[in-house]
Amino acid sequence: MQSQHTSRSFDEELKFLANRIAGMGGRAERMVDQAVSALVNADAGLARKVIDDDAFLDEGQREIDDKAIIVIAKRQPVADDLREIIGAIRISSDLERVGDLGKNIAKRVVAVSNARHPFSLFRGLQALAELALTQLKDVLDAYASRSVERLGFVRDRDDQIDAMYTSLFRELLTYMMEDPRNITACTHLLFCAKNIERIGDHATNIAETVYYVVTGEQMPPDRPKEDKSHRVVVKAESAG
Amino acid sequence: MQSQHTSRSFDEELKFLANRIAGMGGRAERMVDQAVSALVNADAGLARKVIDDDAFLDEGQREIDDKAIIVIAKRQPVADDLREIIGAIRISSDLERVGDLGKNIAKRVVAVSNARHPFSLFRGLQALAELALTQLKDVLDAYASRSVERLGFVRDRDDQIDAMYTSLFRELLTYMMEDPRNITACTHLLFCAKNIERIGDHATNIAETVYYVVTGEQMPPDRPKEDKSHRVVVKAESAG
Repeated sequence: MQSQHTSRSFDEELKFLANRIAGMGGRAERMVDQAVSALVNADAGLARKVIDDDAFLDEGQREIDDKAIIVIAKRQPVADDLREIIGAIRISSDLERVGDLGKNIAKRVVAVSNARHPFSLFRGLQALAELALTQLKDVLDAYASRSVERLGFVRDRDDQIDAMYTSLFRELLTYMMEDPRNITACTHLLFCAKNIERIGDHATNIAETVYYVVTGEQMPPDRPKEDKSHRVVVKAESAG
Repeated sequence: MQSQHTSRSFDEELKFLANRIAGMGGRAERMVDQAVSALVNADAGLARKVIDDDAFLDEGQREIDDKAIIVIAKRQPVADDLREIIGAIRISSDLERVGDLGKNIAKRVVAVSNARHPFSLFRGLQALAELALTQLKDVLDAYASRSVERLGFVRDRDDQIDAMYTSLFRELLTYMMEDPRNITACTHLLFCAKNIERIGDHATNIAETVYYVVTGEQMPPDRPKEDKSHRVVVKAESAG
């Protein structure tokens, strides 16, 4: 959506911001993917790598913020150029947070790997992560091409993520009730699942920002986005 | 830190942003306080009020964002005026999120009130909320007075919040292991505690933004801010 600017270097500055966002996005996706792999395979080395990678996103956000301020002050952009820059600030903040969530999953690898779990729990977590990462990837693609037409899927898929998370929440509670020895690890898995669900929310935020950058309008509100896990009550069968 | 501007209405626009932030801050504090009260007293009516209040913060953030963009485009501010506006965008985003976290606590009131809990669990949660709210309040005061000298407490208090959260995490796990009938409610309480700990993180973010607005520099990095709960492993004594 970038139009021609009188100044060629202004175009290059905007391109710098967009490229840096793309780099942050790719790294955030990989971190989450690797954090979940580390969890499933009890791979403490891979978890360590994810934790270290987070610095890249922190640095990326700082750099984009600094650059954005400089560009606004120097170029005094209006309308779509200004939205472009404000959009970069917002998206980098969401991506930085996705990285934090990935790191938080990685940090739980050791506590989770102390116990054995049925394969279905991990499969549920992997499926949830896959869906959230697809959402993030598609939203970042829409940002790269500045196309709001491609954002129709976002709300529906966020609902799917929330439903899958709520079902995993229920499954983890049940598993904890079956055997108290599962409680610690499953609690950490619950937080991992919640983190992944939040990554879906950040993808939705990014979609809203893309919509705003391209159209200058707020994305029309839809059903309220929320997971239903706060209502879940699973009764224990025995008094233990 | 507002200097005199040639334009009186520019000052008024900046004042509008600061006032709106103050309003959002007050509402966010009250929401969290009331959400925790609703939880402790199993007060579904108060919980409903908190959930409804969240719209005020969503609206506040949208309004600040829109106004900020208009002011930047119209006034083309540089240096500290520009930082002032970017700061308002950032802080309103943190406050909106604090409201979400308060709302999420309120939404768990019903699931938690299905069971009886030892008073100490609630006391722990209340103490955690009190500390996080004090942090938020002090940080918002520092923003109101634009005084970075008063930000020295932030990192230490965030460490206290994290330590208190980790201890509550451990206590809740232990309580779940004692009786599987506690698992559902305690899981919701775990998420409530996590939400409060996150509110502390948002207060730290706001402190960093205040520092940036006032000085134009990033707040010097300190110890990495994190809770230690991801390491917590509590062993169940029986196989249930």
